[in-house]
Amino acid sequence: MPELYYGGDYNPEQWSPEVWAEDMELMRRAGVNLATVGVFSWSSLEPEPGRYEFGWLDQVLDLLHGNGIKVNLATPTASPPPWFSLAHPDALPVTADGVRLMHGSRDTYCVSAPAYREAAVGIARVLGERYRDHPALAMWHVHNEYGSTCHCDHVAASFRTWLQRRYGELGALNAAWTTAFWSQGYSAWEQVFPPRRTQYLPNPSQMLDFRRFLSDELLTAYQEQKSVLRALTPDIPITTNFVFGAWVPVDHWRWSREVDLVAIDHYPGSAGIEAEQQTAFGADLARSWGGGRWLLMEQAAGSFNVGGRLHSKEPGRMARNSVSHIARGSSGALFFQWRASQGGAERFHSGMVPHAGADSRAFREITELGELLPRLAEADSAEVEAEVAILWDAESWWATDGPALPSPAIDYLAAVQAAHRQLWQLGIGTDFAHPTADLTAYRVVVVPSLYLAGAEVIASINQYAASGGQLLITALSGIADETTQIRLGGYPGAFRELLGIRVEEFLPVDGTIELDTGELAEGWSERVLLEGAEAIARYQGGVLDGWPAITRRDNVWYSSTWLTDPAYRSLMTQVVHAAGITPAELPAGIEVITRRSADARYRYILNHTAGDVRLPYDGIDLITGEQTDGEVTVAAGGWTALRTKPAEQPPGESVAKRNQSITGC
Amino acid sequence: MPELYYGGDYNPEQWSPEVWAEDMELMRRAGVNLATVGVFSWSSLEPEPGRYEFGWLDQVLDLLHGNGIKVNLATPTASPPPWFSLAHPDALPVTADGVRLMHGSRDTYCVSAPAYREAAVGIARVLGERYRDHPALAMWHVHNEYGSTCHCDHVAASFRTWLQRRYGELGALNAAWTTAFWSQGYSAWEQVFPPRRTQYLPNPSQMLDFRRFLSDELLTAYQEQKSVLRALTPDIPITTNFVFGAWVPVDHWRWSREVDLVAIDHYPGSAGIEAEQQTAFGADLARSWGGGRWLLMEQAAGSFNVGGRLHSKEPGRMARNSVSHIARGSSGALFFQWRASQGGAERFHSGMVPHAGADSRAFREITELGELLPRLAEADSAEVEAEVAILWDAESWWATDGPALPSPAIDYLAAVQAAHRQLWQLGIGTDFAHPTADLTAYRVVVVPSLYLAGAEVIASINQYAASGGQLLITALSGIADETTQIRLGGYPGAFRELLGIRVEEFLPVDGTIELDTGELAEGWSERVLLEGAEAIARYQGGVLDGWPAITRRDNVWYSSTWLTDPAYRSLMTQVVHAAGITPAELPAGIEVITRRSADARYRYILNHTAGDVRLPYDGIDLITGEQTDGEVTVAAGGWTALRTKPAEQPPGESVAKRNQSITGC
Amino acid sequence: MPELYYGGDYNPEQWSPEVWAEDMELMRRAGVNLATVGVFSWSSLEPEPGRYEFGWLDQVLDLLHGNGIKVNLATPTASPPPWFSLAHPDALPVTADGVRLMHGSRDTYCVSAPAYREAAVGIARVLGERYRDHPALAMWHVHNEYGSTCHCDHVAASFRTWLQRRYGELGALNAAWTTAFWSQGYSAWEQVFPPRRTQYLPNPSQMLDFRRFLSDELLTAYQEQKSVLRALTPDIPITTNFVFGAWVPVDHWRWSREVDLVAIDHYPGSAGIEAEQQTAFGADLARSWGGGRWLLMEQAAGSFNVGGRLHSKEPGRMARNSVSHIARGSSGALFFQWRASQGGAERFHSGMVPHAGADSRAFREITELGELLPRLAEADSAEVEAEVAILWDAESWWATDGPALPSPAIDYLAAVQAAHRQLWQLGIGTDFAHPTADLTAYRVVVVPSLYLAGAEVIASINQYAASGGQLLITALSGIADETTQIRLGGYPGAFRELLGIRVEEFLPVDGTIELDTGELAEGWSERVLLEGAEAIARYQGGVLDGWPAITRRDNVWYSSTWLTDPAYRSLMTQVVHAAGITPAELPAGIEVITRRSADARYRYILNHTAGDVRLPYDGIDLITGEQTDGEVTVAAGGWTALRTKPAEQPPGESVAKRNQSITGC
Repeated sequence: MPELYYGGDYNPEQWSPEVWAEDMELMRRAGVNLATVGVFSWSSLEPEPGRYEFGWLDQVLDLLHGNGIKVNLATPTASPPPWFSLAHPDALPVTADGVRLMHGSRDTYCVSAPAYREAAVGIARVLGERYRDHPALAMWHVHNEYGSTCHCDHVAASFRTWLQRRYGELGALNAAWTTAFWSQGYSAWEQVFPPRRTQYLPNPSQMLDFRRFLSDELLTAYQEQKSVLRALTPDIPITTNFVFGAWVPVDHWRWSREVDLVAIDHYPGSAGIEAEQQTAFGADLARSWGGGRWLLMEQAAGSFNVGGRLHSKEPGRMARNSVSHIARGSSGALFFQWRASQGGAERFHSGMVPHAGADSRAFREITELGELLPRLAEADSAEVEAEVAILWDAESWWATDGPALPSPAIDYLAAVQAAHRQLWQLGIGTDFAHPTADLTAYRVVVVPSLYLAGAEVIASINQYAASGGQLLITALSGIADETTQIRLGGYPGAFRELLGIRVEEFLPVDGTIELDTGELAEGWSERVLLEGAEAIARYQGGVLDGWPAITRRDNVWYSSTWLTDPAYRSLMTQVVHAAGITPAELPAGIEVITRRSADARYRYILNHTAGDVRLPYDGIDLITGEQTDGEVTVAAGGWTALRTKPAEQPPGESVAKRNQSITGC
Repeated sequence: MPELYYGGDYNPEQWSPEVWAEDMELMRRAGVNLATVGVFSWSSLEPEPGRYEFGWLDQVLDLLHGNGIKVNLATPTASPPPWFSLAHPDALPVTADGVRLMHGSRDTYCVSAPAYREAAVGIARVLGERYRDHPALAMWHVHNEYGSTCHCDHVAASFRTWLQRRYGELGALNAAWTTAFWSQGYSAWEQVFPPRRTQYLPNPSQMLDFRRFLSDELLTAYQEQKSVLRALTPDIPITTNFVFGAWVPVDHWRWSREVDLVAIDHYPGSAGIEAEQQTAFGADLARSWGGGRWLLMEQAAGSFNVGGRLHSKEPGRMARNSVSHIARGSSGALFFQWRASQGGAERFHSGMVPHAGADSRAFREITELGELLPRLAEADSAEVEAEVAILWDAESWWATDGPALPSPAIDYLAAVQAAHRQLWQLGIGTDFAHPTADLTAYRVVVVPSLYLAGAEVIASINQYAASGGQLLITALSGIADETTQIRLGGYPGAFRELLGIRVEEFLPVDGTIELDTGELAEGWSERVLLEGAEAIARYQGGVLDGWPAITRRDNVWYSSTWLTDPAYRSLMTQVVHAAGITPAELPAGIEVITRRSADARYRYILNHTAGDVRLPYDGIDLITGEQTDGEVTVAAGGWTALRTKPAEQPPGESVAKRNQSITGC
Repeated sequence: MPELYYGGDYNPEQWSPEVWAEDMELMRRAGVNLATVGVFSWSSLEPEPGRYEFGWLDQVLDLLHGNGIKVNLATPTASPPPWFSLAHPDALPVTADGVRLMHGSRDTYCVSAPAYREAAVGIARVLGERYRDHPALAMWHVHNEYGSTCHCDHVAASFRTWLQRRYGELGALNAAWTTAFWSQGYSAWEQVFPPRRTQYLPNPSQMLDFRRFLSDELLTAYQEQKSVLRALTPDIPITTNFVFGAWVPVDHWRWSREVDLVAIDHYPGSAGIEAEQQTAFGADLARSWGGGRWLLMEQAAGSFNVGGRLHSKEPGRMARNSVSHIARGSSGALFFQWRASQGGAERFHSGMVPHAGADSRAFREITELGELLPRLAEADSAEVEAEVAILWDAESWWATDGPALPSPAIDYLAAVQAAHRQLWQLGIGTDFAHPTADLTAYRVVVVPSLYLAGAEVIASINQYAASGGQLLITALSGIADETTQIRLGGYPGAFRELLGIRVEEFLPVDGTIELDTGELAEGWSERVLLEGAEAIARYQGGVLDGWPAITRRDNVWYSSTWLTDPAYRSLMTQVVHAAGITPAELPAGIEVITRRSADARYRYILNHTAGDVRLPYDGIDLITGEQTDGEVTVAAGGWTALRTKPAEQPPGESVAKRNQSITGC
């Protein structure tokens, strides 16, 4: 019988042994079975260079083991101790302005500094050697949320080496970066620097390559630790927890190949129903990165932070959010952190045990969920259904995250989320895919604002279109090649022929634009000439009055504008209909996720509304074990999971074969 | 007969001797009796290292003396001359980013730099030796508006010494700062730094201790000068002018014990009636710091600056504002500055003599006020009545002035001002008190957002409650101990038992919240469990519908939300009624301050409105010398001061004994 | 027959020789006759120190020559190559914060660094020597958009030398800068620095002198190159392209005397009709700087950037904007750039050949305009009519572009543009003039917010008033002398007697203010005492109710407030009527520019509206060659140019003699 992970970051070094004893009792009560230990423990483990204090950690691991709790053991390399800064000031990170940061927070290291890299591998080795045979050890958690940047001379040297590998000759770099513009031509490698503060607009190709480099450099640092740990503990899975944000220079598709289990930390940046959409978005992305298997490594137990202020999770929401992740394939629900800290910068980050203690609504809900989770475990290996894929490309995000683009409103993440949101609202299971993945198993592929498109990407998308699947491409796709150089002759250079159109110019706008369908778009429009496609919606009013807004050429669709949600949903409905998919007609705020294994089908129903809802689904309730009689009631703010036999699947539905191997990245 | 000080900063070094002659004539015309001289004169007094030019200052002091004007002589240490920067570049201040500032403004020094400290004491000694016997010398004005910060290595060294004194062992610091969080554990003192720019959120305990250290470090610098001057001129009072603002790391309770007379510079940061409330707030604070006696050292004569733009004081306002300060105990009304500068950064700061010259409305009003002020002098030693005290705690301000709190809307100053504003609007005289002061003489004590509460504070407040006084505590009080570590088991840990409640979680909100009284609160709410208290108002609607919002347990009241003014006034009215105080029913915009001496009672009535007002007060008008006949008319924008015999005091009123000795700070 | 220049920046180093071939074909098709080459070519011309690659440029110049296109050859000194940064790190610019910038953009040099100055003259000499006899060479384009700043020690040394020349003695500088304020007195020259980051408000006189210094320092650098080129090519005109903005420390009046032809780059910062007004404003300014002759060196061909987002020029607008410049005297219409870049920071800056290529609306319009332009050439030497002059003073702009002024809403540029906008809307031709120019040929002179007024300026304006011309002065004029020291005794000190008023105080306001004319002003008011003038409008309501707002004393007018457009137009109408000028009654959005030569008169009519317009103008259409019959129709968004005989001039109109020699600056 599989088991779902339940637990979270456990930081006993912040507490006394008396508290540890209470922790064990409460963890048992809550059904915790996995604790992430040691994430920021370097200064507790090695308080002075070479002097180690493992006694406390020995005790903690023994305690956990004695209480039947497995350990996800972290290497503490995200935060070197203060003594490290003094011993190696050159390993402190430097901003683009040249400010060398000081310790006093977390992540104050330069990933390219040799002293840091050596020390990181060193502490990982010491930990691996000490705990390789500990019976509680279940997983290695390397580092924490890789994503920091630096602009120092170590980074400069390493960046040059990376560029030499990428471009070979300096001439190739000069061409790729268009250094002829503004007299930036390099005549020797040592003239190339990270993008430090400069006088005016930076070179966009340099910016993009720097983020690519940082992703690879951080990955190399991860792999160094992984090698050491793999050699010591060949059977223990090794991973790191991904974090997600515009500032994180990490290409998660590439990293996913290097971890044994994709793990994410997930903190939606909004409240209300948007947070639920973000939860689904992040979970679908993580599942896609993981090829189906992944783990929610961190989420907030109680209040969550949006824009600097706490938002309390109303009763039931913590459990519903956890089930939302599990329904989408997470092998459990973990939290940061077990116990809310009493001090330190994140003292108001909620915990499974809040400041108020175990006698609290928050901890009671934790305990209730712990009791129910094992009943969901049987579905852990069942595949999440998805007939639609959205392309996801970190590099297109990075390439459109800078100055001097046609509009400051360009927002890659928003474009991808908008595509996902329509499908979420239509109740259609959705994967993400890398642009060069084999897409042919999907009935519909959506390509939102895929700004960069190299030859391989173009071939992949053309191949999908040729296979007959419905393909929806949105504005700002295919504009540039891998170097960010514009594809000439009319936008979108990469997909002009495929789409049967030619765009002469961009017309970003403020506010909304009317379409002749009566629907609204906003922020962006284009002068589109039809060269084989037909217009299925046209601009109305303004300088583009009567010009095509949305086009279609057989199975290939294009939106030249940023549709508002109602307009986008209407277009998406047309596209999926063309693919033979009939969206479920779900009430607003109701979410259904479907999974399938060899011998069962599962439905998870989440009710994000304030009222009970009754839905025509049948099956055995995994929680109560009872068979529903044609209808199921889901309580306000609650959730239900049902199992049916595959034979009970309605005729006409089919499951897309998931793209299990990510290629070309 | 006592005399009220009238005058201001006088900067003759900016003007020619011809202007000095006119100054004397105009000062006499205006009734000026005190001039603050030399505040920023270092480069004029010591243009090159060790070469002094005292001739001009000799002349000026003689001129002032010859015209019957006393001198408040400043040490010029707030701004070392440019030559000092070149001689001691290490004494220029450094930002948290590592930017070493350059001279070209004011206050470009590092308070911990040995060269600066030596030079400051040196120039103070030279001044003291030269003018110790000058007949005009009436007061020493050390430095100006202490409050600058620095993050350099001198500061780092001094901060470590301060921390060693506070914590003794490094382990105690590690515990107090929760350095186990994010691997910040220190294994040697030299690893500890001021809070320089770091990667992410800073350590809140480090931030708080740094502000405490800065207050003490600046105070030590003050005391060094004071010792020198005291030795030279034992009979001359020594002070410095306090300035007030979120950026000023000075704990004025502690400093007040070290000055012979509390003096403040007061520039309200808003216009309209809010400026009048701020005036009252600042004056009550200064009087409380001073134990009853204080002096308004600077205010704007004409226009005042709000948000970078000048606001003209309409006719009468300069006088009314001056009387507002005097009524609350200031021993005079001084201005920055005598004559508006012709150049320099503050050339548009108004002066008693404006750019337009003496033939101006502004100067005519100065002259009129100078004529009237002596008639108010008799009340200078009378005590201001106050039956209510509000606790004021700079450290709680500092502790809640940072990132990663439950809400960015948390605002200690606003919380204290809101409490004071209700009392101001109810016409109730109010003192401020240190949290460990003996509070028992007050009928009501208000504790707004006293975030930090150590054992001594808890004992003091419990003792007050036990004495039977009405105690109103508001949200975010008693959350943490002196180190900023959260008190566990339910908020507000320090006062949970006293209040008879337990708060399980904070629910900051955007916008307003309804109460079942029909009134509104905003920004903040809490999940309050009653454990002995009763709810006197409950939340209505939202996730806390029906939960307690305001509670009472006998004489102890708690508001778990930020009440809007009408709701707060209504609560405050209940609290003061419970204490047997009946608020005066004053028309809006009318302010009455009451003082009492052994043989007289004084009423100051300020009319902030645009219409004349008639009020039922009797007494002898200090300005006209006439007895009112049961009613007094105060002109639009004007003021009146009345004297009655103490016997005329209505029965049932009583005067709280002011807390004269500030203890425990 | 004169020729109008048509073409733009040509950057062949960004493209392959195959593209050059197409460029020649397209340039011929478009009628291009001038290409600006080499602006940012340093790293292409000298890829390593002392190693030159001229082959490509030889080819390009030969190609252009072979195709009948003249060359405006640039020295590439605005952007030294990366190797230069490594060879001379001290020549990289430093911010006020002390951050030394890195290459990676453009303009990363310090103008005062000896190594930079030497290298700049060196590359100019090499270019001059190589191409002095090339038949295509028609003009030298030194550098590009001079305007960068630096705060390093080279700049400090040079600034001190400049100050020594200006002030002679240090005491004079101390007096001029009011260093007695805040103890800034200098006792040695080495204590004086550029305005680096300091603790609080900077010294405004230091700020102003630093901008003056930068203007002169940049000019010296320009002149060094000019001397070299002049010696090599005495017959080739030498210029540089002016750029305009608050951050540009260049006094264009002074610079205009040093260039053979004033040239500007013009990118309006707004869209819609405001952009047309800005176009007229910039063109009138450039013509005035140039004494009648000038050249539009850069404008956007297609989209233009406002606030970071592209705005497409709707069909016809590119041509209409070009004609707007030419009508105001530009000897042609040039663009940045010929071909939109494929990469680099400005890849979305539009080009004459857009990304879409020659088969595009944008390029077709370029071709059409190229065909028409020669028909406008005959008017190139005709004088633009202007009976009104507005004073323009960069130093008053700089002096009011800083902190600690009476209001952050003070905006010199806006004040000048507001004056120009009223005249533009009234259809009255307007010049700009330096404050010390001979103004007597103008019927009306407007003096908007001329904050600084030295003795010479006062004399010039008094002389104009004495000559009987109508003089309109607006608020914040004449407040300070050249050092920024306030003129005392009542504002505006410089013009108090002339205006017959005395202002006692400034009353900046938020929002609007009513006048007794029923019209509105906003943002600013003053307490004005009449001392000889009469009030022609008064404030209504508020603290200034009934006080004068607009005054008149014979031919001298004063507005003490910032009038809204309707109120300002009404005042301006009164003023021009008093001067005997009758404004044309043009429909909204219609613009008419009039020019005159010895034997012809020209009218350019621009229709900025979306509808055709019919106007009662007669003449021969320069485009069609046909005689209109009393009325002319100008198409929506279009333009027309008509020639009449001078005799056809209506009686009573006269042309002001333009002030050809700029004096006193």
